[in-house]
Amino acid sequence: MALIQDLQWRHAVKAYDSSKKVNEEDINKIVEAARLAPTSSGLQPFHVLVIKNQEIKERLTAGALNPDCMRDCSHVLIFAAWDRYTAERIDEVYDWTTHERGLPQGRFSSYTDKLKEMYLNQTAEENHAHIARQTYIALGLALAQAAELKIDSTPVEGFDNLLVDKELELDSLGLKSVSLMYVGYANKENDWLASMKKVRKPWDKFSIRYY
Amino acid sequence: MALIQDLQWRHAVKAYDSSKKVNEEDINKIVEAARLAPTSSGLQPFHVLVIKNQEIKERLTAGALNPDCMRDCSHVLIFAAWDRYTAERIDEVYDWTTHERGLPQGRFSSYTDKLKEMYLNQTAEENHAHIARQTYIALGLALAQAAELKIDSTPVEGFDNLLVDKELELDSLGLKSVSLMYVGYANKENDWLASMKKVRKPWDKFSIRYY
Repeated sequence: MALIQDLQWRHAVKAYDSSKKVNEEDINKIVEAARLAPTSSGLQPFHVLVIKNQEIKERLTAGALNPDCMRDCSHVLIFAAWDRYTAERIDEVYDWTTHERGLPQGRFSSYTDKLKEMYLNQTAEENHAHIARQTYIALGLALAQAAELKIDSTPVEGFDNLLVDKELELDSLGLKSVSLMYVGYANKENDWLASMKKVRKPWDKFSIRYY
Repeated sequence: MALIQDLQWRHAVKAYDSSKKVNEEDINKIVEAARLAPTSSGLQPFHVLVIKNQEIKERLTAGALNPDCMRDCSHVLIFAAWDRYTAERIDEVYDWTTHERGLPQGRFSSYTDKLKEMYLNQTAEENHAHIARQTYIALGLALAQAAELKIDSTPVEGFDNLLVDKELELDSLGLKSVSLMYVGYANKENDWLASMKKVRKPWDKFSIRYY
């Protein structure tokens, strides 16, 4: 029950100790959990940006609900999703997949044709809505990986997406920021949530059985 | 590195052995991982429905991209999200939270007032788009928990949401199905993906560093 214990251990940290930094090996494990996350049709339609540079972090604090966390945490991870699906993006993924599996190029072309037919007939907004959902799988697994390492973290939607996109020129990469994850070590004295009981819906209200 | 190893172990199983059933204790651990998933403002705006009944599973296969998986797997988990935020739903979560923490009722009212101001001024569609994202955190953690137990699973968006909602009368509960998870044991001979290498984007293409 290691994962369940890790999930019980973690909470959304509300204050970080700016003097404590997470080592590179551990950051890489957290990013690796996100990289291994399953995504719809295996397209992995997002990137994880890792911000350690203090000056860049400062620039991103404007519009953040908790700017002190952004400032004081060790690293900020940004889940930045494709703005939309394109034929080129889909082909790149499947060309790589067939290459890695030693299969002939085009082995999955009937499947990718279906994906293109579906996604390229949607608006960019419809595409992005679907893509953004996928990033949350990776966010959850990254949070779990941090917890396994007993590293504190905070999942974050409370930030200025447009400012982040502009500061990091994500538009030129065809990306949009969806969520952040602060990573570091809590300042336990100032983390008001640390001493509070973790509360979840009671089991029988959360799960409905059809047996 | 237990989580990373579990993620490397799992894949989206494409064929199940209908003779093998997952025991109740393990199903409960998978649901528990979903229950412990973090969600925006801690609202847990979804339920996990657990379908074991074969007759109900058969009714849900219409419109499924892989009906045989639905039919042959041991349990189908349905991530069913709130159709929208309401003041009552927000209050119920925070009344329970304050109760569990032994705090005076209303302790978080300035926060819940802000949530209501934000969400109740959005359309139901905007609400649901935000809510649906949260379910993917839980889906990811449930997949990881299954992998930890060496139980096979498949994350699924390829199904007929409206049919599932109608068959299970989710409308009357104010819920909409978002994703499914098939849980069971693979039929390894028929699972064409089982023998293929897991492929993910190369590390340097997935993660961008700002140091």
